[in-house]
Amino acid sequence: MSIEQFSVRGRLADTGEGITGDELQLAARNHGIPLEALRYDVTPAGLHYVLVHYDIPAGSAATWRLAVDGCVEQPMSFGLTELRAMTRRTVRVTLECAGNGRASLQPRPISQPWLNEAVGTAEWTGVLLADLLENAGIRSDAVDVVFTGADHGIERGVEQDYQRGLSLGEAIGSGAIVAWEMNGDPLPPQHGYPLRLVVPGWYGMASVKWLRSIELIDHEFDGFQNAVAYRIRQEADELGTAITRIEPRALLIPPGFPDFMSRHRFVAAGIVPLEGKAWSGWAPIDRVEVSTDAGVTWSPAKLDAAGNDELAWRSFSHDWDAAPGEHVLTVRAIDASGREQPVEAPWNRGGFANNSAQRITVLVT
Amino acid sequence: MSIEQFSVRGRLADTGEGITGDELQLAARNHGIPLEALRYDVTPAGLHYVLVHYDIPAGSAATWRLAVDGCVEQPMSFGLTELRAMTRRTVRVTLECAGNGRASLQPRPISQPWLNEAVGTAEWTGVLLADLLENAGIRSDAVDVVFTGADHGIERGVEQDYQRGLSLGEAIGSGAIVAWEMNGDPLPPQHGYPLRLVVPGWYGMASVKWLRSIELIDHEFDGFQNAVAYRIRQEADELGTAITRIEPRALLIPPGFPDFMSRHRFVAAGIVPLEGKAWSGWAPIDRVEVSTDAGVTWSPAKLDAAGNDELAWRSFSHDWDAAPGEHVLTVRAIDASGREQPVEAPWNRGGFANNSAQRITVLVT
Repeated sequence: MSIEQFSVRGRLADTGEGITGDELQLAARNHGIPLEALRYDVTPAGLHYVLVHYDIPAGSAATWRLAVDGCVEQPMSFGLTELRAMTRRTVRVTLECAGNGRASLQPRPISQPWLNEAVGTAEWTGVLLADLLENAGIRSDAVDVVFTGADHGIERGVEQDYQRGLSLGEAIGSGAIVAWEMNGDPLPPQHGYPLRLVVPGWYGMASVKWLRSIELIDHEFDGFQNAVAYRIRQEADELGTAITRIEPRALLIPPGFPDFMSRHRFVAAGIVPLEGKAWSGWAPIDRVEVSTDAGVTWSPAKLDAAGNDELAWRSFSHDWDAAPGEHVLTVRAIDASGREQPVEAPWNRGGFANNSAQRITVLVT
Repeated sequence: MSIEQFSVRGRLADTGEGITGDELQLAARNHGIPLEALRYDVTPAGLHYVLVHYDIPAGSAATWRLAVDGCVEQPMSFGLTELRAMTRRTVRVTLECAGNGRASLQPRPISQPWLNEAVGTAEWTGVLLADLLENAGIRSDAVDVVFTGADHGIERGVEQDYQRGLSLGEAIGSGAIVAWEMNGDPLPPQHGYPLRLVVPGWYGMASVKWLRSIELIDHEFDGFQNAVAYRIRQEADELGTAITRIEPRALLIPPGFPDFMSRHRFVAAGIVPLEGKAWSGWAPIDRVEVSTDAGVTWSPAKLDAAGNDELAWRSFSHDWDAAPGEHVLTVRAIDASGREQPVEAPWNRGGFANNSAQRITVLVT
């Protein structure tokens, strides 16, 4: 048995092929938000989606060090005590996995098999990345910023620490923070304890967990997770385009009560208040539309007041006059940049950024 | 579309049938413990396995009421404030889902598709169920104790609140507690906030979450979850036997580092310390055996000191002198009652209590 047999390239499921054992292993350890938990404006830590590429590392806040080096005037290293002494801020951020929606694609790319639940919103407390970089002094030759986590593994034959790059402009302009608290508590192990990056507006792959190094480099970063993994492609061997910000999406809290196995819903006839959350990493949400007839007709939902963190999800509601029978509920978000969530998003080979509209089957009795 | 079409009976997967969309929906919302988190003696709340039959209910500690009634001298009702004023205790309990191991069975029962990760150990703080019942006064005609949660749904056509019964003897003798804290914090929503039952030694289905009623009845409880759902059967229409306590099992922390997709492991040759946890709901762990050649030969593992809570999992370790090549690690637990974890457990139609031994494929380089 060779490394190549242990760690294979991605493939597409055959027509009609069920979820594989490899996909199930990932689904059993990672998890999405149970959709009823969309009721919380801030997701409790244990209900926020989790995607871990390799293993959750063991780390200690007492001994953790973060290096800041490369194209800086003064290479630096920070412990948690030193970071906590700096000006801190708390930001409310909606994070979504770039692979959300993958398992519904035809053909299905074989990887973590998300349906549509890989999302969550938390309040992250830490220091502005821009402040850290300013402390070290950004040299004029700096181009990209490379973030390295303590999680180590192999992926399609490439052994690596999890590592992602951002352009210097995005690293500063996105308002990224280096955080040690989630919802007012120390980070849970699965969310990066003791230290992680959080990049507002970007899919989760940018928010490197178990952060131990920030390096400024004088060229474009070409590491595996930027140049190979997280790209929109039609064919396996094309360069593709980089995945960046979160496409608009809305999700309804499934109304009524569920069947255990099918997750179909049962609702009593009459006025049913439908509620949910909508978000986009490109711009604030402009409007949300709800359909109770599988997308034939659409009604505008009522948007709750926007919060201070304009890329965090926004609550919406819509009263549905439910008549007996079977109905399919669906919903779509449109943001202020004009991006519209499609009913069916175009396919891509990695199964990324698939923001096809949610469908909930309801039996009204 | 009828209720029968929305909520079907359980079925077995066809030969070679992959994991279905229904199973995936459950796997995406519920989750196991990432096996590297077996490193923690007490599982952080967000890493403890979660299985929710229906939806996580919304509840508030400020207004929650627990009724204690039926065959008691004095029906009572408790709020959280009254419970917190009673004598409290904290117990360390290993909980495992009765369906753990289901997805590896041939043929595979279609339900929550656990591999072997549906376990966790937490410290639960609350009042002894026996104290609550004593307060209300147990009448001599009491036979069973029925626990009802606030979670509501439909299962194989039967609409229900989640409800389980225990005999009065087990309810008192098991040391069951009514808990409002997990690991020193209020219960997270998915673990029963604000109040739940915890039955040490029993599979998780007995530990009713979102607990709102405890009723003593004068006959054997025949509700769905006791009489229909959680039973060991060979045929769908037989009565079967009730599932009660947790069968012995050991799990290794996978050594080295993983491949993202296959979860196969990579380890450097030499002495590799293997560690893990072992537990049984019947009796304390007596010994653990490790095999590094797929079960051909077995070596005794070293057991760490036992804790005060004798049914909580116990740590073990074993030094493996790893030679280059491919190896399959496996492990088995034997408890003080003489129950031995089998390499392959017998099949049953619901896929319950399947404690077949873990297998980890490792490439030593």
